[in-house]
Amino acid sequence: MMAWMNRASLEKTLETRKTHFWSRSRQKFWMKGESSGHTQAVADISFDCDGDTLLIQVEQIGAACHEGYRSCFFRSVHDDGVDFKVTEQQLETPENIYGKKP
Amino acid sequence: MMAWMNRASLEKTLETRKTHFWSRSRQKFWMKGESSGHTQAVADISFDCDGDTLLIQVEQIGAACHEGYRSCFFRSVHDDGVDFKVTEQQLETPENIYGKKP
Repeated sequence: MMAWMNRASLEKTLETRKTHFWSRSRQKFWMKGESSGHTQAVADISFDCDGDTLLIQVEQIGAACHEGYRSCFFRSVHDDGVDFKVTEQQLETPENIYGKKP
Repeated sequence: MMAWMNRASLEKTLETRKTHFWSRSRQKFWMKGESSGHTQAVADISFDCDGDTLLIQVEQIGAACHEGYRSCFFRSVHDDGVDFKVTEQQLETPENIYGKKP
């Protein structure tokens, strides 16, 4: 998945070892899995050469994606650039994820 | 590595099976490796659930990073959030990469 962090969400992530992000649209922090229970335990945090992107390796509980897939990147582009194929199995329906208590 | 694409750079990438990006600062296309020779042969292109991020799996020739590492993410953050460690070996010096003809 791809999400945004600011300094405080990174600090919170380091402190708790669970990923916390910053929602630009809602202007608030969120812990990944706070409503779905699908948290991410941090294994490693690396940063790129110009220091503006983080790559966080996690142990993912259940589906990272709000569409119920382990990864948000569950669709691959065909060579024609138009069609795509789904490359993962759906673990849960979106309704199940958000009906569930954390 | 993380870089930016627009529609035309994605089309060029699909057409050539080598990654092409869009430089926002220089407002121009670039093919990864065009000056260094460190091209990326595309194996798979997936896109995320809201369709604004691509994850491209490549066969990387040499160093992807302009600092001479295979990956730009060659530094990991320590638990204290201040220190870091280098997790890869440098393959080439930056001077070598850009002294070299494509």
